[in-house]
Amino acid sequence: MAALGIIGLGRMGANIARRLLRAGHDCVVWDRDPAAVASVAADGATGAADLAGVVAGLDGPRAVWVMLPHGAPTEDAIAALGDLLAPGDVAIDGGNTFWKDDVRRAAALKPKGIHYLDIGTSGGVWGLERGYCLMIGGEADPVARLAPIFDALAPGRGSIPATPRREGRSPNVEQGWLHCGTHGAGHLVKMVHNGVEYGMMQALAEGLDLLRAADSPALPEDHRITVDLADVTEVWRRGSVITSWLLDLTASALAQDPALSRYTGTVGDSGEGRWTVQQAVETAVPAPVLTAALYARFASRDETRFGAKALSAMRAGFGGHLEPK
Amino acid sequence: MAALGIIGLGRMGANIARRLLRAGHDCVVWDRDPAAVASVAADGATGAADLAGVVAGLDGPRAVWVMLPHGAPTEDAIAALGDLLAPGDVAIDGGNTFWKDDVRRAAALKPKGIHYLDIGTSGGVWGLERGYCLMIGGEADPVARLAPIFDALAPGRGSIPATPRREGRSPNVEQGWLHCGTHGAGHLVKMVHNGVEYGMMQALAEGLDLLRAADSPALPEDHRITVDLADVTEVWRRGSVITSWLLDLTASALAQDPALSRYTGTVGDSGEGRWTVQQAVETAVPAPVLTAALYARFASRDETRFGAKALSAMRAGFGGHLEPK
Amino acid sequence: MAALGIIGLGRMGANIARRLLRAGHDCVVWDRDPAAVASVAADGATGAADLAGVVAGLDGPRAVWVMLPHGAPTEDAIAALGDLLAPGDVAIDGGNTFWKDDVRRAAALKPKGIHYLDIGTSGGVWGLERGYCLMIGGEADPVARLAPIFDALAPGRGSIPATPRREGRSPNVEQGWLHCGTHGAGHLVKMVHNGVEYGMMQALAEGLDLLRAADSPALPEDHRITVDLADVTEVWRRGSVITSWLLDLTASALAQDPALSRYTGTVGDSGEGRWTVQQAVETAVPAPVLTAALYARFASRDETRFGAKALSAMRAGFGGHLEPK
Amino acid sequence: MAALGIIGLGRMGANIARRLLRAGHDCVVWDRDPAAVASVAADGATGAADLAGVVAGLDGPRAVWVMLPHGAPTEDAIAALGDLLAPGDVAIDGGNTFWKDDVRRAAALKPKGIHYLDIGTSGGVWGLERGYCLMIGGEADPVARLAPIFDALAPGRGSIPATPRREGRSPNVEQGWLHCGTHGAGHLVKMVHNGVEYGMMQALAEGLDLLRAADSPALPEDHRITVDLADVTEVWRRGSVITSWLLDLTASALAQDPALSRYTGTVGDSGEGRWTVQQAVETAVPAPVLTAALYARFASRDETRFGAKALSAMRAGFGGHLEPK
Repeated sequence: MAALGIIGLGRMGANIARRLLRAGHDCVVWDRDPAAVASVAADGATGAADLAGVVAGLDGPRAVWVMLPHGAPTEDAIAALGDLLAPGDVAIDGGNTFWKDDVRRAAALKPKGIHYLDIGTSGGVWGLERGYCLMIGGEADPVARLAPIFDALAPGRGSIPATPRREGRSPNVEQGWLHCGTHGAGHLVKMVHNGVEYGMMQALAEGLDLLRAADSPALPEDHRITVDLADVTEVWRRGSVITSWLLDLTASALAQDPALSRYTGTVGDSGEGRWTVQQAVETAVPAPVLTAALYARFASRDETRFGAKALSAMRAGFGGHLEPK
Repeated sequence: MAALGIIGLGRMGANIARRLLRAGHDCVVWDRDPAAVASVAADGATGAADLAGVVAGLDGPRAVWVMLPHGAPTEDAIAALGDLLAPGDVAIDGGNTFWKDDVRRAAALKPKGIHYLDIGTSGGVWGLERGYCLMIGGEADPVARLAPIFDALAPGRGSIPATPRREGRSPNVEQGWLHCGTHGAGHLVKMVHNGVEYGMMQALAEGLDLLRAADSPALPEDHRITVDLADVTEVWRRGSVITSWLLDLTASALAQDPALSRYTGTVGDSGEGRWTVQQAVETAVPAPVLTAALYARFASRDETRFGAKALSAMRAGFGGHLEPK
Repeated sequence: MAALGIIGLGRMGANIARRLLRAGHDCVVWDRDPAAVASVAADGATGAADLAGVVAGLDGPRAVWVMLPHGAPTEDAIAALGDLLAPGDVAIDGGNTFWKDDVRRAAALKPKGIHYLDIGTSGGVWGLERGYCLMIGGEADPVARLAPIFDALAPGRGSIPATPRREGRSPNVEQGWLHCGTHGAGHLVKMVHNGVEYGMMQALAEGLDLLRAADSPALPEDHRITVDLADVTEVWRRGSVITSWLLDLTASALAQDPALSRYTGTVGDSGEGRWTVQQAVETAVPAPVLTAALYARFASRDETRFGAKALSAMRAGFGGHLEPK
Repeated sequence: MAALGIIGLGRMGANIARRLLRAGHDCVVWDRDPAAVASVAADGATGAADLAGVVAGLDGPRAVWVMLPHGAPTEDAIAALGDLLAPGDVAIDGGNTFWKDDVRRAAALKPKGIHYLDIGTSGGVWGLERGYCLMIGGEADPVARLAPIFDALAPGRGSIPATPRREGRSPNVEQGWLHCGTHGAGHLVKMVHNGVEYGMMQALAEGLDLLRAADSPALPEDHRITVDLADVTEVWRRGSVITSWLLDLTASALAQDPALSRYTGTVGDSGEGRWTVQQAVETAVPAPVLTAALYARFASRDETRFGAKALSAMRAGFGGHLEPK
């Protein structure tokens, strides 16, 4: 069985280690929080005292998976690996990195003979049980070498119906992992995945808003319709065109709390949604839905509304409208 | 000089009467508020006691301009005129009516021999001094007969530079009034005018928001830029590509109150913006900007944010994200 | 076993009949195409010579399901049923009708004692095997009476994981059919379903466009990335956040024909997408994603591009830009 | 009178020189095209043989205005000036540069004691007669020193009505030039100006498209309305809320060629529209209208429509729809 070094034992990193351990792989792990190391070590991993200890704890050719917040933490860890790893070793960024950073890093490591893989990892908190969808960028050799690791992490074929006409294509894909292409390709595909995710989520959110407003007192009385959103989303899970995991999660949340009262209505965004729009702009591809989904999140957090005040000022200017308070 | 009946003496109706009176035309006016009638009568109009009194006070062929809120008030007044007017008379709806209602009304009045004109009237509170841009739908005869009225209401050529190559076209247009076409054409053109107005306003509002956020503490320190929006909008009035009356109004509002603190950030919408989007949907014409402008107004008033809560619920479902409070 | 009359034996109507027949229900069917009647009769249905024959072939209280194109065909059939059915009978519109038409029809049938149900039916060509997701509007009594029919048509629980916390809620929903609410509620929920469907589809389409453009020669050479869309969509089916039936269909289409060369790039739209936007406008609910998805379809069919020419004209006006041919 | 060096004598650079010459300022000019130099020299400028010649031809403290295409040409010229200019001199980028590049360049020139000004210049081909709207970023000292140059280039107060309540504010603004703020502020304000320009243009374009489609044969006969767009845009110039220079240009183009037949319907975009959207994304400011305007231009050039084909493929997958050819 192969061994993998893992740097960063947050929700994702720890569960990746655990899923590998369950499959019989060895893991040498480190996190700046000793309790996180101890927790994963209790499940069978080898804990290290620092990043260098992870490298030292692996036989060559080594592979070290960095699973840290994007930006400085990941950047620093990859730089440190560049000093610690030997030719033939593999540095992996499994986090949410901007794909152009992968291109730069791979070029920087190449003169040292160190391989670099960028792996977009989808699955969230469900990945430990459900497996992780892996989108991999980099050279073919290290990908081939690490295939057993990817097989263990990916969901496998499971009960998902096979797509017809895939004869002659890589069987890895149906296991749930794909060598997408050159350096950056893994995070590019993950970035677009997340962009699509934003769009699908917003489509569902707008549908719910429309149904919720359908009994608005502003409507004529015989055109007001009240529906139960928990039941509607549940029935959509059954044979409708929009069956999807996001719908499953929505139905589950609504069954638990029909008013979704635990949420404030402000929604965060991670880098991928933004990078997706920037990619659209850079490549001159219209992406109105993905962009609208991102802007809806921005708007959910917008408390200033200065532009809206300017609209009112213009209306007052030409029409003497005074917006009602 | 011609005489015009005017029903409804709100801001628009009263000023239309006054502008006609100044030009030497007679006006027979009525409003359900006797004070409004008295005020316009003090400026030279003939006040009437009711709608029938307006009709009775005019020599035939009569023309009665209804300037009331759209919906029931206008509908009722036009219906009443249908009973009071004689063949050859003209009923005018100068308000903000949905153009399909004009088509219906004109068809209903036609068997009685009563003409119907729909007139989109732009100019707002400035119209008394600046003149009204008139967009007229209906048959050619009553339009021709009322040309002196339209000449008096419209802004006239003024100091606006002439557009080249208009030889052979109606000089009325450069006076500021246009017989746009058949019944409904006046309000259709006004509807689209207002749709464009929404889009232009929102373009300006977004520009202001972008400039205001350019000194966000979330940016790297050397990428934070502070600008004075009152000065920026003023300089844009001078030789830039976006010089416009809406920009004039914005610069004026910002000079008076740079924080626009008298506005709440909630923005109303009248029917035309909505009808414009419905026209886009009905005729399968993409109108992303006009629609986004309408939705921005909807969003400014949206307090519920249920869809946004659903986004948070999905994020919690797949990623264990808890949105920060 | 219950018997159902079915009017209209297109793809949907015929398969609905067949799925009921397989479950042991009787069907009395009619279509204006005798071959369609013969085909379903060969599978066990009772063919009728006309709409009246369907009614005559059923014992009371009858239920007749109309499955015709929306607009005049459905309208006429419902009107005919209003003359043929008896008090206590049920007329069902299972097609894609605008929900406000359901409200009107139910009100028209009520004085005759005839029940009316509007049923949004999702499942498409897969429904025969997969079952139909049924969204039902109308009074509770006829819904309860027809429960065996709905049980037979709906997908049933199948292998879909149960949503937690649904205790105390109707078990019908997990069978795949829901009494959504009053008259119109079924088609309203179906309309919004289709709106969400448009949004999800467009999110996927934009993602594919972005990935396809990622190797654009306009990009710097080291920022061009080539990916295989058939593989990417396949791997997304495995453990990713955007797993969905629409993704399954996309992966399948791309596996079969990676260039999608059999499609022209023009995309039609049915009424629901448009009605969804009109509902958003009418209830002042921002729906930017659902609207953008609809507009993308409009744009795919737009050959005129007059507005775009006007953009070029303005650019030429202020900047002397001549758009490259 | 002050003297200004000008590098780049395209449409903008040459007219800037001419407007300064007309105001009595000296200009030392260079372009890689000797004919361009000769042409401006014929109007009174001092032609130089190369960039160094421009610098040599000026007395200190010098000011050199670079008016070249953004990207490498401008970058190279500024770099060269960094080697040629002396402490106290001013390098000016009057082109369409991304504002972050200004920040970088100013920081690079500062150790050499060379000032840097970024000037967003609006006015296009009309600037020679109409004057240029100048948006200036950089330190206060060189801005103050060059005030006579800016006064000559800007439009001046002209006949534009003064905005009330500007007492105590810089009178330069009403001349048409503004010191917007620190390095980058000039191009930032110009960038947003152009973003707003895109939005306003698209608003007008959509309005025209809607009016043009209003006589679509797909509409019921009594709901088809034909209007003359040249007349409609002309009348909107007179007293309407959307009076604007862009409307003037549109009316002029339509008067000249109502079908706009000289344009293809594909529309280019310069950097500022893209940078505006990227700024929105970076600062989390929703800018749906400015983005939709940019995407409309992208879409106008999009020949591939792969995403649209994927929509058709999904429709075929679930519904058996075959898009009509």
